[in-house]
Amino acid sequence: MVKHEDVPEETMQRMLAYLRELDCMLQEGKDAFSSQDLADTLHMNPAQVRKDFSYFGEFGTRGVGYDTRQLTQELRKILNLNRTWQVALIGVGNIGSALLRNPELKRQGFEIVLAFDKAPSRIGKKLGSLTVEDVVKVSERVREEQVQLAIISTPVECAQEMANTLIQAGIKGFLCFAPCHLHVPDDIRIVPIDIPMALGKLVYRL
Amino acid sequence: MVKHEDVPEETMQRMLAYLRELDCMLQEGKDAFSSQDLADTLHMNPAQVRKDFSYFGEFGTRGVGYDTRQLTQELRKILNLNRTWQVALIGVGNIGSALLRNPELKRQGFEIVLAFDKAPSRIGKKLGSLTVEDVVKVSERVREEQVQLAIISTPVECAQEMANTLIQAGIKGFLCFAPCHLHVPDDIRIVPIDIPMALGKLVYRL
Repeated sequence: MVKHEDVPEETMQRMLAYLRELDCMLQEGKDAFSSQDLADTLHMNPAQVRKDFSYFGEFGTRGVGYDTRQLTQELRKILNLNRTWQVALIGVGNIGSALLRNPELKRQGFEIVLAFDKAPSRIGKKLGSLTVEDVVKVSERVREEQVQLAIISTPVECAQEMANTLIQAGIKGFLCFAPCHLHVPDDIRIVPIDIPMALGKLVYRL
Repeated sequence: MVKHEDVPEETMQRMLAYLRELDCMLQEGKDAFSSQDLADTLHMNPAQVRKDFSYFGEFGTRGVGYDTRQLTQELRKILNLNRTWQVALIGVGNIGSALLRNPELKRQGFEIVLAFDKAPSRIGKKLGSLTVEDVVKVSERVREEQVQLAIISTPVECAQEMANTLIQAGIKGFLCFAPCHLHVPDDIRIVPIDIPMALGKLVYRL
């Protein structure tokens, strides 16, 4: 088994995709599977699946395949997902409040523990067990709660400034719904969720 | 200039990313740029940028660079984004209604023209200029309006059945917010928007 940081980025991303598939298999009651099964659903080569797994040890049984539940647990451990991560949400507009009501996030190990907005009409509002706080407190509160992840769902004009503040407060990774390119240091991860761009992927071959 | 279908998938995806960047540049008032500028923001090699562009013709001027506005138009043409695409929205819950209120979609050329739900409390509701219709009419209405794109934001249990119906009605591409793997024919495109998986990408190196 190699050191985590020596595993290629692409492999880590595929491990996440495998975990997602295994999750679906469990929901469908599929308790065991072969590398071929997994490769087929993801339109991949089974040798690639086996090679990716081999970075982390020996999981399957030759001729029998993999135990879905057991491998799910192994993947969660490998991916740092065998725990709950606290998340700060910045911007409680349409998308932000939809995320707060999404039970899937918590099921997958992500809990929104702080929510901020700058609109006076939203500050102080109760959303589930959370109270929306004034965005001026974001730095102080993120530090206090030692939160490492944030979701930015503010208007595009505020996104970069918000990212700077959050990084200073200790945030290490962002999901960003604002349609812009954020400039951040190399050790900070950003994953954009860009819905128009996703729609764009549907049409260039039509 | 090569035929569209001979351009590698990865190039097409990068063309979309370039378009997104150019859009940001225009908003920031940057009227011209070099392949180096574009490569730097995207953490790429400028030779790759030039190679990607070269599939489609000669755009820049040596020593001067590219005209942002002009190249934006060229990219939109190449990516089939120089028109408005009609979209059907299935599931008007939290995420669905957030998308209906998102001005960015229309700005990028995607207009939600049909919205469906199965909850009696939502059917008939006016959301902007749209009226939410009963999901039993989805097939008939998608055919009538000749819509080719759909966004599935239903609960996971309904997603596959919905996809089957939509494909029969002529939908060629899906955005899917339901956290599951949809099985579709090879000529149908699906882009999943998987928020827990996106958060997962933030933590495996932490």
